[in-house]
Amino acid sequence: MSKRNVVEVLTDLGKDIVSTLRDGEFPTFKLPDRGTKNIVYDSAADQFILGNSQITRDSSNTKHIRSFAQLIWVAYFAKQLIEADRTSSLRDLYYSSEAFGIDFCDQAESDRMVIDLECLTGVPREKFGIFPEEHSSIFGAVTMRYTVRGYEGKEVDLTMSPDGLPVGRALMTAEPISTEAEVLLAVESGGMFSRLIETRAWERYNAVLVQLGGQAPRSTRSLMKRLHDELDLPVLIFTDGDPWGMHIAQVVISGSANSAHIMGLTIPDARWIGVTPSDIVEHALPSEPLTNADLKRLDELSRDARYTGMEWKNHIKEFRALQRKTEQQAFSRHGADYVVDTYLARKLE
Amino acid sequence: MSKRNVVEVLTDLGKDIVSTLRDGEFPTFKLPDRGTKNIVYDSAADQFILGNSQITRDSSNTKHIRSFAQLIWVAYFAKQLIEADRTSSLRDLYYSSEAFGIDFCDQAESDRMVIDLECLTGVPREKFGIFPEEHSSIFGAVTMRYTVRGYEGKEVDLTMSPDGLPVGRALMTAEPISTEAEVLLAVESGGMFSRLIETRAWERYNAVLVQLGGQAPRSTRSLMKRLHDELDLPVLIFTDGDPWGMHIAQVVISGSANSAHIMGLTIPDARWIGVTPSDIVEHALPSEPLTNADLKRLDELSRDARYTGMEWKNHIKEFRALQRKTEQQAFSRHGADYVVDTYLARKLE
Repeated sequence: MSKRNVVEVLTDLGKDIVSTLRDGEFPTFKLPDRGTKNIVYDSAADQFILGNSQITRDSSNTKHIRSFAQLIWVAYFAKQLIEADRTSSLRDLYYSSEAFGIDFCDQAESDRMVIDLECLTGVPREKFGIFPEEHSSIFGAVTMRYTVRGYEGKEVDLTMSPDGLPVGRALMTAEPISTEAEVLLAVESGGMFSRLIETRAWERYNAVLVQLGGQAPRSTRSLMKRLHDELDLPVLIFTDGDPWGMHIAQVVISGSANSAHIMGLTIPDARWIGVTPSDIVEHALPSEPLTNADLKRLDELSRDARYTGMEWKNHIKEFRALQRKTEQQAFSRHGADYVVDTYLARKLE
Repeated sequence: MSKRNVVEVLTDLGKDIVSTLRDGEFPTFKLPDRGTKNIVYDSAADQFILGNSQITRDSSNTKHIRSFAQLIWVAYFAKQLIEADRTSSLRDLYYSSEAFGIDFCDQAESDRMVIDLECLTGVPREKFGIFPEEHSSIFGAVTMRYTVRGYEGKEVDLTMSPDGLPVGRALMTAEPISTEAEVLLAVESGGMFSRLIETRAWERYNAVLVQLGGQAPRSTRSLMKRLHDELDLPVLIFTDGDPWGMHIAQVVISGSANSAHIMGLTIPDARWIGVTPSDIVEHALPSEPLTNADLKRLDELSRDARYTGMEWKNHIKEFRALQRKTEQQAFSRHGADYVVDTYLARKLE
């Protein structure tokens, strides 16, 4: 969606309100219900989506008027931002509200209003220039073209910084131009990311490396999806060998409940390459017993619609049988090169 | 210290042990005592240093033999790393030990052994290629020259990525070549860092920007110090307006107790530019009451040798009188440009 289209969506929203008021009526918003009961798994799209249940925010209702006004202000703030070609963190948005007498209890409340605006308009907040502070990194033989002010049209080679490049506001809005790589390998930890750069594993396997840093920020998932779609890069995900690591991969593949109102973030044919429970055994990795929290998480995942595939069911079964977990770094037990020369060599075949 | 010198230090350590054994004696290590009682503030160096108290680790003592062996293994691991031109995270080091039958209870124990090696040799772990995972970022008109493998001699302009560059293993070992900037401005939060890039405040104030991300990693402090010393950049630090933000600045200026065994990390003429308690009043910033934890922290700081200067005493007094704190982002209350056009304009005069 182009910048002009985004402004148009916001302008139309404002015009609707004004014309309703001119007709002597109270304006209302209809929003999809984001309650857990209205989040359904759409197997065709292979992601969570919101169901048909809706809620109405009615400005004639004194209980609704506060959040109604807050939502209008967030839309106003977003329009100002995009027209000024600026961006804002969610935290800045929260503080900016004070000058307008908009009374948010806390940042959690203003963050929710931003999600409401996303639902109302179908536009993800990144398009309005509103970002969280979280970051992950990328490194590999990809050329991208910046679109941010001061850097328009400038091309960047993602191998230029041997520490990787942060997936910040500039990179997440840049256009993928070309790649010499054959695969995108996303890894959970910064330590593994550094090791794969340093040992030149990226060259050996023709891989673009992405450091997820735990649950991947939406900006990173979106960048990975564009590299997958536009540059035909298959996506592999390498995480710690525990229920949480497995789920980091799952969210990249099939989406999260929290982002059920955003389409086009999932990569259904991405694959989790481990560390799987059977890898723990096969590679004789140092491991620890699953905790109660881990076991509880496995129970939740076994009831989760995203885990109905046979392969996922097997992973859960094996975790339960093995009762152990491990980390990506555990391969160091076999020397610094084992993870690249042996483990990844087999997985990337 | 050059790579060859570092290897020499480790080799000498090994030779000493072997020759002691050949003489039929039990080798011992003498280490500075790192207990809080032996950490003193050296006002000449303007940083914490370790006092004269020493501990002995004696291989003839069964209580010492375990940690004695662990320390030798860490020295061995460091020598392997540096000779292979590799690096390792602290986590990887912990896992690597298992293959050698070195029995660390947990990573905290292996991390302590790395500090022991630093104390024993006087060489910071970064010189051995051992790093934590933490990261901060940098952006500005500085040219640096990489020294890491595959990038030797390659120059990088630190404005090349509009998202900033991570201060990773490559950048922290790169050499500062030249700068067009006149000041180094370190900021606490990622949001402020992005804003100062995006609004081109770095250009307007001729500033190199560093994002500390809370308490600055040692690698970032070391890079800042080299930019200060080698390129004559004065250092200003801009943090949240609370006791914790003030102390983030203080650690850059005068060092931390945890790094008391490492010399050459402090920047005594760096300055904290706020947010000070009087800024909160002067700029009518949204603020919150100090919590009990904040007040307790103020008490600790008021007894801390680093806070004996009149200016610091005043800040503490004013925090206590005002009983309020704020964040960098709070300037957004006055619009997105206020922090640059008004606040920083005054502070950077």
